[in-house]
Amino acid sequence: MKTRLTEKLAIDHPIIAAPMAGTSGGALAAAVSNAGAMGLIGGGYGQREFLEAAFRDAGNARIGCGFITWSMAKNEALLDLALSHRPAAMMLSFGDPAPFARKIRDAGAVFICQCQNLDHVRTAVDSGAEIIVAQGTEGGGHGATRGTMSFVPEVADHLARNAPDVIPVAAGGIADGRGLAAALMLGAEGALIGTRFWAAAESLAPKGHREAGVSASGDDTLRTNSIDVIRQLDWPPGYTIRVGRNGFTDRWHGKEEALRGALVVEVPRYQAAVAAGDPVNSAPIFGEAIGMVHAIEPAGEIVRAIAEGAAAALGRRRRG
Amino acid sequence: MKTRLTEKLAIDHPIIAAPMAGTSGGALAAAVSNAGAMGLIGGGYGQREFLEAAFRDAGNARIGCGFITWSMAKNEALLDLALSHRPAAMMLSFGDPAPFARKIRDAGAVFICQCQNLDHVRTAVDSGAEIIVAQGTEGGGHGATRGTMSFVPEVADHLARNAPDVIPVAAGGIADGRGLAAALMLGAEGALIGTRFWAAAESLAPKGHREAGVSASGDDTLRTNSIDVIRQLDWPPGYTIRVGRNGFTDRWHGKEEALRGALVVEVPRYQAAVAAGDPVNSAPIFGEAIGMVHAIEPAGEIVRAIAEGAAAALGRRRRG
Repeated sequence: MKTRLTEKLAIDHPIIAAPMAGTSGGALAAAVSNAGAMGLIGGGYGQREFLEAAFRDAGNARIGCGFITWSMAKNEALLDLALSHRPAAMMLSFGDPAPFARKIRDAGAVFICQCQNLDHVRTAVDSGAEIIVAQGTEGGGHGATRGTMSFVPEVADHLARNAPDVIPVAAGGIADGRGLAAALMLGAEGALIGTRFWAAAESLAPKGHREAGVSASGDDTLRTNSIDVIRQLDWPPGYTIRVGRNGFTDRWHGKEEALRGALVVEVPRYQAAVAAGDPVNSAPIFGEAIGMVHAIEPAGEIVRAIAEGAAAALGRRRRG
Repeated sequence: MKTRLTEKLAIDHPIIAAPMAGTSGGALAAAVSNAGAMGLIGGGYGQREFLEAAFRDAGNARIGCGFITWSMAKNEALLDLALSHRPAAMMLSFGDPAPFARKIRDAGAVFICQCQNLDHVRTAVDSGAEIIVAQGTEGGGHGATRGTMSFVPEVADHLARNAPDVIPVAAGGIADGRGLAAALMLGAEGALIGTRFWAAAESLAPKGHREAGVSASGDDTLRTNSIDVIRQLDWPPGYTIRVGRNGFTDRWHGKEEALRGALVVEVPRYQAAVAAGDPVNSAPIFGEAIGMVHAIEPAGEIVRAIAEGAAAALGRRRRG
């Protein structure tokens, strides 16, 4: 399946694995890339050791990397470290990408910006983004309010009018070939997929979280600030994190001020639950697409299944 | 374009126009049906005169009707009135459809249920629904939290496993042929479309609202309870209404309790703004797909443009 995205990234399938913080290590990124898609290491929240290990674990695979922009901006040396490994692509999301654009392009990495509204898109285009990931609210992890179904074509229209060389990609709620085929219909040139790779065999997400995820429905998630409060992450306004609804969110979602007052007790409790992979007292970070994820599978098989599923979906309607 | 939906409803294009309260009168429904799709009269909130006028205005067109279930349940005579006109289809949304199923099917109307989560789908299937509209949060008017992109395939999977004769349809964020083609890829057999028809020439929405809508972006909407408070509509929990962000929502969204205390002053002010078609002080009811709606056009032309656009989108990727 050839698209402008496969040409730009020199890959076989128009699929990017999201750079999920703490989840997308080198093994996951490499497995995705080795199957013909583009795996991105999750730059996360500034752990240099994690980043070094991820690039080491990726070996010689042709992978990329992604950062949470506002977090990386506090420690730009992490970007330098990542670029020193000559990644094929660098994705920035959640913050102003402009200060980092030249460095990324000078390093020879394809410059990807993930956007949650049209203002983000305008800023990203002005910064020299080559690929815009239009991220819908159904996605797991951090995001905002626009839904994938309408945001993607609106972004595609915006780019066609204002920056026709910039390539739109869809994210949010996509877990299988049907979603990839739908993304192509909406005007995207491919899909960025998180949740399904979060559940992959190579994922670094806690095993207990993934086991809970594969039996969940897409109805079992919510967007909340409580998870950032307990993790003491200072996210800018406008973003929430989508996680699996569980005992923790039942207790603390919507009661973030009370949680702030209870951090001395609650933070160690939460950290212990994460370490134990406890899906009730620490939140699995998946999106609504979890309802289409039913097993923990090797990432390479996931890539192949999505690509084949998209071709099949397109072929079925062709005959119809 | 033939699908199980076009066969079931005996229509040419797999498109249903949403039964928007106060907006979908007989002229709009008839124009949609006469162009080969299925137009639904909006049964609204119990105004018998509106309903009688709508069926009169529809003339001999082969149209259907839709009700807000919890509202119609307070005055079942409205359902009887609608069924006495032998509609081709009857859609129920927002409430328990079971008590009305037999009457609808006995009247020979195709029984459509719109659903916002999988519990709704299970209830609708148990009630004998023949078509399930899976409605995503990006849609205008009332709805809930699931995004179209992941909800539709999850509903399609659920029906394929548990009720293979029931036909899934996608709603929420769809305004053009790309959205319809995407819906088909996701496993739906067609699309229910509101916002684009809300802006149609035959729509009964205030002209000033529609003129504001066609210049809005999909970023310019929000889900709120404030509009139901000012309209004194007693919606059950779990639902919000998506409207255009404007002066009214800037003042009152998130301050619903204060608004409840100010109704004596604010209700007449709001009603006057609606009557004047004032898009700043009364809320235009559109969804995120408004960003793809750029003109007030005849509904029949909209149907043809969506059908042709979907065929073109599918054809482009076929060649790719």
